[in-house]
Amino acid sequence: MKQIAILGSTGSIGRNTLRVVDALKGEFGVAALGAGANVELLTRQVEQWRPRMVSVSDEESAEKLIYELKQRGVASRPVIGVGVEGLCEVATFDGVETVIGAVVGARGLLPTYRALELGRRVALANKETLVVAGELMTRAAEKSGAELLPVDSEHNALHQCLRGEKRREVKRLILTASGGPFRNSSKEEIENATPAQALRHPTWRMGAKITVDSATMMNKGLEVIEAHWLFNASADEIDILVHPQSVAHSMIELVDGSIIAQLGVTDMRHAIQYALTYPERRPADLPPLDLTMLGKLEFFAPDPEKFPCVALAYDALRRGGTMPAVLNAANEVAVAAFLDEKIRFGDIPRLIRAACEAHTPQTASSLDTVLAADRWARDWVEQKITCQWTAASVN
Amino acid sequence: MKQIAILGSTGSIGRNTLRVVDALKGEFGVAALGAGANVELLTRQVEQWRPRMVSVSDEESAEKLIYELKQRGVASRPVIGVGVEGLCEVATFDGVETVIGAVVGARGLLPTYRALELGRRVALANKETLVVAGELMTRAAEKSGAELLPVDSEHNALHQCLRGEKRREVKRLILTASGGPFRNSSKEEIENATPAQALRHPTWRMGAKITVDSATMMNKGLEVIEAHWLFNASADEIDILVHPQSVAHSMIELVDGSIIAQLGVTDMRHAIQYALTYPERRPADLPPLDLTMLGKLEFFAPDPEKFPCVALAYDALRRGGTMPAVLNAANEVAVAAFLDEKIRFGDIPRLIRAACEAHTPQTASSLDTVLAADRWARDWVEQKITCQWTAASVN
Repeated sequence: MKQIAILGSTGSIGRNTLRVVDALKGEFGVAALGAGANVELLTRQVEQWRPRMVSVSDEESAEKLIYELKQRGVASRPVIGVGVEGLCEVATFDGVETVIGAVVGARGLLPTYRALELGRRVALANKETLVVAGELMTRAAEKSGAELLPVDSEHNALHQCLRGEKRREVKRLILTASGGPFRNSSKEEIENATPAQALRHPTWRMGAKITVDSATMMNKGLEVIEAHWLFNASADEIDILVHPQSVAHSMIELVDGSIIAQLGVTDMRHAIQYALTYPERRPADLPPLDLTMLGKLEFFAPDPEKFPCVALAYDALRRGGTMPAVLNAANEVAVAAFLDEKIRFGDIPRLIRAACEAHTPQTASSLDTVLAADRWARDWVEQKITCQWTAASVN
Repeated sequence: MKQIAILGSTGSIGRNTLRVVDALKGEFGVAALGAGANVELLTRQVEQWRPRMVSVSDEESAEKLIYELKQRGVASRPVIGVGVEGLCEVATFDGVETVIGAVVGARGLLPTYRALELGRRVALANKETLVVAGELMTRAAEKSGAELLPVDSEHNALHQCLRGEKRREVKRLILTASGGPFRNSSKEEIENATPAQALRHPTWRMGAKITVDSATMMNKGLEVIEAHWLFNASADEIDILVHPQSVAHSMIELVDGSIIAQLGVTDMRHAIQYALTYPERRPADLPPLDLTMLGKLEFFAPDPEKFPCVALAYDALRRGGTMPAVLNAANEVAVAAFLDEKIRFGDIPRLIRAACEAHTPQTASSLDTVLAADRWARDWVEQKITCQWTAASVN
C-alpha cells in the first residue's frame, strides 16, 4: 500500500483526494494530513483514515483537535504539528510516496519544496507554487528526481496528451479556457462587473478567488506560467484557446500539425486519480463522458482587449525572475479588494500592471527572495487601494 | 536514405505519398513503384523518382511504358513487372524498408502479405486488406516483426492516440464518421437516393466507391473490422461517433474515463507522413488546423435504422472467419450496381445482408480461402442482381 500525505486535506482538492483514495480501495494509505482550522472536518478525516501525523494552522486548533478526538473516542492519536512547520512535517513524513499539494496560497510553498527535495512525487494543485517559485521547484525536482504531476484539469490534460510524444516534436501547448462569465460581455460591462456577476462561472464550481480569476482570465495567465515550468515550454510555445464547454481540457500541437486533445468530465477527481496512479490508469468512479449529449464544442481566440490579464501574465513570464510572484500577489490582493467592493472589476488588471511596472525583477534564487517580492507586491497594492485607488488615477 | 515501395503509385494515396516524400527532401528514396494502366502518369513518376523497379497491370502497359520512357529519353530503365506478380516483386524489392499498400481491391492482398512476411513496415491504405484477410496479415506481421501502420485518417488517429497508452488501459476505440451526405435525410429519402446524391460527400473528396461507402456508412463498418485487427480490439470495444466536421479524426477512451482525441486538417498527407516517419514526427508541409475558424464540433450517435450497413459489419466481425470477406465483396458488387443504376440505394444493405445470410463462414486459414469466399460473394450478388433483384424480392 502506497502512503500519501495531503497538504490541505479539508479543502476541495483534499476532500476529493480522499474520495479517490476511498474509491481505489486499499491501493493507497493516508499517512499524514495537513489542514487549517476546520477541526470538525479534520476530526472526521482522522477518525476515518487514521493518519499517523496531522497538522493544523495554530495551537488553538491543535488543542481543539485533541479534545474532539478524545470526545469521539478515537483511540489512535496522531502526532500533531502546527503552522507551516507542521505542514513541512506532513510533507516529509516518513514513508510517504506521494504528497498532494493543495494548500491555498503561499503557505504551500515551503512544504511542497521540502517534499520535492526528498524526491517525493508531488501531485500539485496549489496554483501559486509554480507561478511564484517555478524555477526553485523544478530545480529541486530535477536534482532529487521527484515527479511533479499537475492536478488541475488543464495541465493534467497536457500531461496526458504528452505521454507518447517527444518533447522536441511538440510545437505548442494549447490551454483551453472556459472564457468565464464575461466571454460575451462588452468591455464596458466587464469594467463595471459586480462580484455577484463575476462569481457566476459557467462550467466549473470553484472558490471565489479562482472564480474571479476565471472572469478576468488571469487563471489562464497563471496557467501559462505553470505550463512553462511543468513542461519546459517558452511563452511563445503556449497558447490559450477559449472553449466555453470545458470538455476538451487542453491540447498539444505536434510539429507535423497533428493536435492531440484530452477530453473528459469536469470533475477534479479524474486528475487527482491520474496523478496518484500515474503511470498506470485505474477504472474511475466517475460518470463517463458522453460526447453525443454535449451538443457542440466551440473554440474561440481570447480577446486581449477584454481580458488584459492574459497579456500581463505573458509579460511577467517573459520578464521572469520575481516578476511572476509580483503578478500573482498583486492579483490576489486586487481580487480580494474587488470582492470587498473596494475596487472595480476593471481595476484588477490596472493594479496588477501598475505593480509589475513598479517592480524591478530579481533572480528567483531562493524562496526568501520570491516571498519578499510577494510581500512587497501585496503591500504595494494594498497601499494603492488604501490611498483611494480609483480607475482615474492611472487611466 | 530509407527506401520505399509504393503499391498503387498513380492513385490518390500513391500520388500524395510522392508529394510527402518530396516535401521530406532526401529522407526517403523511391525504390519501386507499382501501378495499373495509367502509363502516362507512371512515366512521369519514373522520370522524377528513378525507381529501380516498376510494375504495371499488363503486358500492353509494360510495352507502352518502355516506349514512353524511350521517347522521353529517360536513361535509367527500371525493371518492369506485370500483374499481381509484378506488385509482389515491388513489395519485396531488395532494400525496401517501407511499403505503401495503396492498391485498390483484392489485387493488393498478396503483395501486402509478402511485404509483411519479409518483416517490412507496411503503411496500409488498402481498405480490403484487413477486412478480408486481417487474421492472416496480422499473423504474418507478428511472426516477422513487421509493423503495420494505418494510413487512413481514422486508424492513423487511433494509432496516434494510443502512443502513450497501455493496451489494457484502453476501454474503447471511437471511430468518428462524417455521417455522409444522408446524415439528415429520412429513411425514405435514403432508400431512393440517386448516385449523384450519394456522391456528394460533405467533407472528404474521395473515389466513387468509397464515397458511396460513406453514404451507407459501410465505410465505418469496414473500419470497425480494420480497427479490430490493427489494435486487437473486440467488436464491443469499438464504437462509432458521428462527427460531421471531420476534425477529430478519432479518439480513444481510457479505463479512467479520459478521452484522447486526434484532430487535424483533412489532408491524407498527414497520415502518410506519419506512417513513413513513425516513431518520429517531422514538420509537415500542410496548413495548420485553426480551431477558432471551425465554428463548432458536433457529435451524434449513429442511427442504426437509417444506416443498417453498420450493424451488418459488426455482425460479420462477430461471426468472423470468411464472413467479413463476404461482407466486403457483396458491398463492392452492390455499390457498383448502384452506381450503374441497376439497384436502389436501399438495396445495398439488403443485398449484403442476403449474401451474409447465404454464407457459412469458414476459418480464414489462407489467402485462397478468403479469396474464394470473396469470389463466391461477388458471383452470388451479381447473380441476384442479374435475376432482376428488386427490393420487393426480400422485403
